[in-house]
Amino acid sequence: MWGAGGLRYGGDYNPEQWPVEVWREDVALMRRARVNLVTVGVFAWSRLEPEPGRHTFDWLDQVLDLLHDGGISVALATPTASPPPWFSLAHPDALPVTADGVRLHHGSRDTYCAAAPAYRAAARAIAAALAERYAHHPALALWHVHNEYGTTCHCAHTARAFRRWLAERHGDLDALNAAWATSFWSQRYTDWAQVDTPRATQYLANPGHLLDFRRFWSDTLLAAYTEQRDLLRAANPTIPVTTNYVLGDWVPVDHARWAAEVDVVAIDHYPDAVDGGAEEQSALAADLARGWARHGAGGDRSAPWLLMESAPNQIHTGGRMHAKEPGRMTRHSLSHVARGSRGVMFFQWRAPAGGAERFHSALVPHAGPDTRVFREAVDLGATLERISEANEGTVDADVAIAWDAASGWALGHPGMPSPQLDHRDEVAAAHRALWRAGYGCDVVLPGDRLDAYRLLVLPALYLASDATADWVGRYVRGGGHLLVTWLSGVADEHARVRLGGHPGALRDVLGVRVEEFHPLADAQTVPLSGGGTGRLWAETVRLAGAQPMDTYADGVLAGLPAVTRHHFGAGTAWYLSTRPDDATYRRLLSDAARAAGASPVCPTVPAGVEAVRRRGAGASWLFLLNHTDRPQRVPAAGTDLLTGATVDAQVHLPAGGAAVLRESDAAGRRGAPDRADG
Amino acid sequence: MWGAGGLRYGGDYNPEQWPVEVWREDVALMRRARVNLVTVGVFAWSRLEPEPGRHTFDWLDQVLDLLHDGGISVALATPTASPPPWFSLAHPDALPVTADGVRLHHGSRDTYCAAAPAYRAAARAIAAALAERYAHHPALALWHVHNEYGTTCHCAHTARAFRRWLAERHGDLDALNAAWATSFWSQRYTDWAQVDTPRATQYLANPGHLLDFRRFWSDTLLAAYTEQRDLLRAANPTIPVTTNYVLGDWVPVDHARWAAEVDVVAIDHYPDAVDGGAEEQSALAADLARGWARHGAGGDRSAPWLLMESAPNQIHTGGRMHAKEPGRMTRHSLSHVARGSRGVMFFQWRAPAGGAERFHSALVPHAGPDTRVFREAVDLGATLERISEANEGTVDADVAIAWDAASGWALGHPGMPSPQLDHRDEVAAAHRALWRAGYGCDVVLPGDRLDAYRLLVLPALYLASDATADWVGRYVRGGGHLLVTWLSGVADEHARVRLGGHPGALRDVLGVRVEEFHPLADAQTVPLSGGGTGRLWAETVRLAGAQPMDTYADGVLAGLPAVTRHHFGAGTAWYLSTRPDDATYRRLLSDAARAAGASPVCPTVPAGVEAVRRRGAGASWLFLLNHTDRPQRVPAAGTDLLTGATVDAQVHLPAGGAAVLRESDAAGRRGAPDRADG
Amino acid sequence: MWGAGGLRYGGDYNPEQWPVEVWREDVALMRRARVNLVTVGVFAWSRLEPEPGRHTFDWLDQVLDLLHDGGISVALATPTASPPPWFSLAHPDALPVTADGVRLHHGSRDTYCAAAPAYRAAARAIAAALAERYAHHPALALWHVHNEYGTTCHCAHTARAFRRWLAERHGDLDALNAAWATSFWSQRYTDWAQVDTPRATQYLANPGHLLDFRRFWSDTLLAAYTEQRDLLRAANPTIPVTTNYVLGDWVPVDHARWAAEVDVVAIDHYPDAVDGGAEEQSALAADLARGWARHGAGGDRSAPWLLMESAPNQIHTGGRMHAKEPGRMTRHSLSHVARGSRGVMFFQWRAPAGGAERFHSALVPHAGPDTRVFREAVDLGATLERISEANEGTVDADVAIAWDAASGWALGHPGMPSPQLDHRDEVAAAHRALWRAGYGCDVVLPGDRLDAYRLLVLPALYLASDATADWVGRYVRGGGHLLVTWLSGVADEHARVRLGGHPGALRDVLGVRVEEFHPLADAQTVPLSGGGTGRLWAETVRLAGAQPMDTYADGVLAGLPAVTRHHFGAGTAWYLSTRPDDATYRRLLSDAARAAGASPVCPTVPAGVEAVRRRGAGASWLFLLNHTDRPQRVPAAGTDLLTGATVDAQVHLPAGGAAVLRESDAAGRRGAPDRADG
Repeated sequence: MWGAGGLRYGGDYNPEQWPVEVWREDVALMRRARVNLVTVGVFAWSRLEPEPGRHTFDWLDQVLDLLHDGGISVALATPTASPPPWFSLAHPDALPVTADGVRLHHGSRDTYCAAAPAYRAAARAIAAALAERYAHHPALALWHVHNEYGTTCHCAHTARAFRRWLAERHGDLDALNAAWATSFWSQRYTDWAQVDTPRATQYLANPGHLLDFRRFWSDTLLAAYTEQRDLLRAANPTIPVTTNYVLGDWVPVDHARWAAEVDVVAIDHYPDAVDGGAEEQSALAADLARGWARHGAGGDRSAPWLLMESAPNQIHTGGRMHAKEPGRMTRHSLSHVARGSRGVMFFQWRAPAGGAERFHSALVPHAGPDTRVFREAVDLGATLERISEANEGTVDADVAIAWDAASGWALGHPGMPSPQLDHRDEVAAAHRALWRAGYGCDVVLPGDRLDAYRLLVLPALYLASDATADWVGRYVRGGGHLLVTWLSGVADEHARVRLGGHPGALRDVLGVRVEEFHPLADAQTVPLSGGGTGRLWAETVRLAGAQPMDTYADGVLAGLPAVTRHHFGAGTAWYLSTRPDDATYRRLLSDAARAAGASPVCPTVPAGVEAVRRRGAGASWLFLLNHTDRPQRVPAAGTDLLTGATVDAQVHLPAGGAAVLRESDAAGRRGAPDRADG
Repeated sequence: MWGAGGLRYGGDYNPEQWPVEVWREDVALMRRARVNLVTVGVFAWSRLEPEPGRHTFDWLDQVLDLLHDGGISVALATPTASPPPWFSLAHPDALPVTADGVRLHHGSRDTYCAAAPAYRAAARAIAAALAERYAHHPALALWHVHNEYGTTCHCAHTARAFRRWLAERHGDLDALNAAWATSFWSQRYTDWAQVDTPRATQYLANPGHLLDFRRFWSDTLLAAYTEQRDLLRAANPTIPVTTNYVLGDWVPVDHARWAAEVDVVAIDHYPDAVDGGAEEQSALAADLARGWARHGAGGDRSAPWLLMESAPNQIHTGGRMHAKEPGRMTRHSLSHVARGSRGVMFFQWRAPAGGAERFHSALVPHAGPDTRVFREAVDLGATLERISEANEGTVDADVAIAWDAASGWALGHPGMPSPQLDHRDEVAAAHRALWRAGYGCDVVLPGDRLDAYRLLVLPALYLASDATADWVGRYVRGGGHLLVTWLSGVADEHARVRLGGHPGALRDVLGVRVEEFHPLADAQTVPLSGGGTGRLWAETVRLAGAQPMDTYADGVLAGLPAVTRHHFGAGTAWYLSTRPDDATYRRLLSDAARAAGASPVCPTVPAGVEAVRRRGAGASWLFLLNHTDRPQRVPAAGTDLLTGATVDAQVHLPAGGAAVLRESDAAGRRGAPDRADG
Repeated sequence: MWGAGGLRYGGDYNPEQWPVEVWREDVALMRRARVNLVTVGVFAWSRLEPEPGRHTFDWLDQVLDLLHDGGISVALATPTASPPPWFSLAHPDALPVTADGVRLHHGSRDTYCAAAPAYRAAARAIAAALAERYAHHPALALWHVHNEYGTTCHCAHTARAFRRWLAERHGDLDALNAAWATSFWSQRYTDWAQVDTPRATQYLANPGHLLDFRRFWSDTLLAAYTEQRDLLRAANPTIPVTTNYVLGDWVPVDHARWAAEVDVVAIDHYPDAVDGGAEEQSALAADLARGWARHGAGGDRSAPWLLMESAPNQIHTGGRMHAKEPGRMTRHSLSHVARGSRGVMFFQWRAPAGGAERFHSALVPHAGPDTRVFREAVDLGATLERISEANEGTVDADVAIAWDAASGWALGHPGMPSPQLDHRDEVAAAHRALWRAGYGCDVVLPGDRLDAYRLLVLPALYLASDATADWVGRYVRGGGHLLVTWLSGVADEHARVRLGGHPGALRDVLGVRVEEFHPLADAQTVPLSGGGTGRLWAETVRLAGAQPMDTYADGVLAGLPAVTRHHFGAGTAWYLSTRPDDATYRRLLSDAARAAGASPVCPTVPAGVEAVRRRGAGASWLFLLNHTDRPQRVPAAGTDLLTGATVDAQVHLPAGGAAVLRESDAAGRRGAPDRADG
């Protein structure tokens, strides 16, 4: 399994943008920062193959040798995310087309259609050439296929491939017509040739059509990946292969389904919260990556993953750059390592003078190495070496949250009851409440094993197949504790609404029957009898076995249940019919977790201090991250790897600072829940 | 004339979305709710003609028989609003094209160009086939052509048809050049082939061009309707024919001009006001429909109309669903009946599991019949039976408001003095002021007979031909009272500004001459000396015979007239040069109405209670609708048809409740104005 | 040199929109208003050439004769900004194409591609025909080529022309690849055929590509202008030629580079400030025009320029019309004359009844001549005659502000650190601060002579070539005073970021090294120790010779320098790393100006009163404009040309009023700085 040994540290390195004298300075600076892994070649196609079939590998030979001589390993990328201009000129049919029929042109990156045969052939060819030349280079530690797969297209190649995919998925047109409910608006197909991609149309599109188009693209991009992977593997089976996931609701990729195809799950993560909340976004991203890795590895809790890209300093949010204050880069890096990342990688090593991302941050910024940023990079390298022993084992988690990419896609479709329905937001809200309550949390996919968890949370799991409903039912019936939020289980896997009362797939487990939805306006809140408020959504909930735990306190729903609890089989199932305010959400989840027998990682941690425990063979490490601007004290005992100091009873954390304790046995057990790990 | 007998009750019914066992349940539930009319087949084309020329009518036979056996009549629709996928594949030239040249594709509804010969031929063929099979079916009560005509196109078929239409309208290019003022920006046409639709262009488009394009589409869609109507009529002249109007400024349909071509005016109405005002929107929509019907019937005040679609529960506004609170559905339904609707129809009977409108509300919601919504539907059915005697005669109205679709279109064109100019909003503001003051109100079209009215209101009647100016002048000269708002009469029928001082067409009648416009910013108000405020607009008004009734109290217009009154011939003409706040507007219109000798429907009605009187041969019915959340009392006498109780002096209305009084003779006359009805 | 003699007064005149009897009324009204110059023919192409090659000049003959008989001169326009419909029909390849590939159609104005050979040929032909017929007409005073050059295109003609232009600019592809930094994202070109215009692409475009596309269009439009100019000049070398500049960041025209090609710089100016600030916008526009004229004339400070279009009354801003209050038209007109305009021209003479700009304001509005607006126009004509003696010489200015169109373009490109970076805004902020402090100000272009100035201000001069850096360095080293704002000198002329610390090109002169940028959010401010605040931007400034003059008072930058001063050579260089609030900015610039030895035009002028001095041979004129709504007094002496009154010590200005003093010698010198004029 990839990722053993010390932690990886480095980032994207683009020597093709610089003269050779800078390469030598780069290696020296990397050594100063203790960088041990760099990603090379991501956008180098036009430098590696300046005309069709003619390769210019000499500069790359030199770069890899220089890095190897410097003791730095290489994640060698196939450059297929940006074909050279000659490719676009030679194959205009391989340029992507928007839903409006606009053919995009060369001038940025990712200007190809991944369903176009010419593109796929060219991509395989350059990957094969790289494999042939470098598969046994001593610097090579990892193959990095492509970059951030995520584009779509509406060209004729795509339409043909989409029809093939649909035929395979649905079998025949009757099944497709049923899945897409084409009786609505006279859309019944009678010949495969009638089926097109969801191009620009007069009015609202068919939600089943939109959903399958996303799934098609996830599978099509995956096929583009796997054919490169197979080539690379064939050249040297000892070198692991991956590709870096780009996160975001716009990405037509179901990352969980991809996880089985990569040797290490790799994510790019750029939190976009500006005024607080970035640490909670980082925590969720890391838990997602770990969950995907475990899912892909058949449930192995120590399956490796890697933070492949992050920002050393400023990130772009809302069209604007936001600088990270001192200390944040280190704290966020440690948060990822605490959650299992096998290292910390940045985009990028050196800030470019030109190009579209000239103001993206870098370990070596425009102002050079004599800067706060590079000094922090040097410190981070030393820190990662000091804590390298923690790079093993698993992460403590009593609670599981379910993630489902397709639910996120379906909730964003036109014609939904509200424009504010967002799977990621609901997962984040529940995860944040648990983060603030101090509970470790695993992300699971529907169907995953659940025996390790005290509590399962389903936030806005909009699509639930019969199998998913069974999975949930079996868990609760067998004694599991469950908390479900509004909009879960409403539709089946084709996004058809389940009838007879919401949430159709989970009605029995929850003991409720929802009659009506009441989406709330942007700034609207509804008071709850328990003292909190709900926002975004409310529902007319009828009890069918459940008992009310909180009620709406005003408006047409006054007196009706807002939160319910149902004893089902040997287990307990909570239902939230609105989004509670953060404090109420934290209280509700704490109540449910406590009742389920779950324990916080470190019960006495002050607000704003993050505690995560990573547990290896015979040892455990407690990561403590102080996200506040005041010094904090945390009761704990062990050896602080950052300072070497022995901690007897209390860790003193400076404002914005961190500690990584190798825990004394007693301390390690104190925080650990009493449970049977899966 | 259509619509006699009891009130119609029902909605759109889509059996093609459901298996036969649901059909049987549907009929049973319809009977429980006393539904007596359902619209069938609106989007069933792909089910009725799965391939060109092959018809599958068996399922529809069965549905119609089932309904007939259940005593339920059918409004049978031609399904031409959504051609099947095979049509789009066979006739790509009949797919619509946007102004940008983007050809839209199958995947929603209404993906056809109504000017494309292939579409028109296919639409006639399916209509003819339906006519042949069902024109004498005993369930058939009404033909419902198409659905919500309203799409446009910029394809080559359209361009050719547009040129033909222009040649017919303008005669020759000289006339077109004059009408469109093509001397501006060198747009003079010298050959018909040079004239195109208003496609995407570099900068501001020609307003005359845009206006005629809207008119062309209204006539083109009307031709698409009438050719189907003629086929259906020919098959059985006893069955009335209609099509359902969709309302909205975006619709390129002049509904008043269509009214003479339908046997009953049918409207779809979905009020979009969320925090109050929906009842006023319903009242205006109903008054519009009645006015169009009267206009189409040559002035017959009892010409029938029907609320063909409305929402049983949630409506979408601003991308979000808003649930209706209990009671609102019934109250709004009664408001339409009070204003002459021959029944209450909903979209739709049963909520679909899939398709783009899966969350549109229905009488039988996703949660099934054991719901508040279906119980209210059952109650409404009983209510409509109880008040069926009121389904005749006319609606009391002393005041007329003019409506002009073309003025609405022209006010929305680029280059106008403000982006907030909106004929519908101005009509609504005046109508709302009259509604709150308790006056019954008819909508008239320029040129309609006016002898029934005490007061004529012209809100933002931007386009005024010479004939319209004459019509207004004759009315006032003959003793009529007139109230005109800003932006009326500014331009001629080609949207060319009338010179010499605004409002060019009405200057003499009003005795004013407006020198300058002063559009106000979004939130800006200007104080008036009388204590109110104006917003949206102000003007430099010079008196030319009129006397000032209120003046601007601040700014560059301080001391200049804001509201004027002019004695002209035997009549009186008021001018409002700004939009007054609601209270001021209500006071001004009350003053003008009182001076004109008009009377409120029910002078003593409390605020928030709507009173409408429908008057038949020898009887009158007073509808009282309590839109407040408190019980209310209204002095009135008669028999309350909802309860059967005799009311001697005072009706007690529960919060959100209603009463429908068959008035005692004395009471019926007390509210009626002393006037000569036209 | 053009522009001697009395001041020009008039506007755009479109007789082609009116019948001949209106022409006669127009001439009579023009005489009443003392109009002496009108622009004729701007959009008359379809009237002058109704079919290819057939000219109808008779009406224009008659118009020019009528005007000449009335003593009114003509600026005769070539009508090439709007080809007739027949042209578009005959040459569809000459219609413009958007970046998305949408071909625009006839229906507005400017629907041509200026790189299309057919368009250029047709434009030359109509210009040649006009030259042949009218070059010696006695009314002809000026040729006015085209109108507001500013459109772009992405058609195939454009792509070919762009490649030719790039080859000329860069020499070879290696140079282009280096300039555009095409190593980023694999964009390296290996054949000219691969280079396209920056069409719609997948993600962020290349900033070098975007910048050169703007430059290409500036040169291409200039070539379209000069070929017409050359034809016109050849027909009669005594008639000057110009074209009217349209201002705005969207315009792909580097007006300074065009200035050498026109005989008089002519600008159209429509200030868009609504609630205050329009007078400051007018002042900046006039200073820009004067600066461009001087630059084009090799530094001649008396090079002529003309306000070619302005609005007599309402202007459109944000889609809405805003009326000008009484007096504003005159005050703004005088502000332009004070700053050197050789007259005052309006768009337009008479308001059109139709067309897209039917509500644009006019000297003769829709309501006719019996209006406030026309009366003010008559008064303005008289005023301009009274002050005609001031139409000579130069304008006092001790301070220079640099302007650079390309910096403005580059700051607006995608991927910049903030969406609020705007060269024009930063120039305006500095100019406004100087305006409020009472300093006269010249606009200079990088490379211009600076010996006339005490202080040079560089606001957001983002692009600085090595030559520009030298120009600044030599100025300061030689004793000049300099004030530089954030974002100046960051990039080179290809928009590549200069490395080693910002602002790369000016680091040495300023004695600072900027490590990090901190763009601020929209409403965010950062307090400064000196009591003011910064907004938009902040920086981590390291001192490298400079001394701190103000520091950040809060946040991560607390205690670090915000404003610095550096003694460099014999001069002084200030650096502002944030945008100060207006009061702080005014104080800082006053401090810097005073230290530099600059003097305000009129030190005792009250706030809101604008003072500008124009200086001729042996005389000077002090323009005093009271922009407040209260009477004001200004100490000054001379003869008020508006009233003829002698002023001994104090000018009394009515609210909103103005005075133009021919200064007594003593007074004239009092305000003048002690300096060696360049």
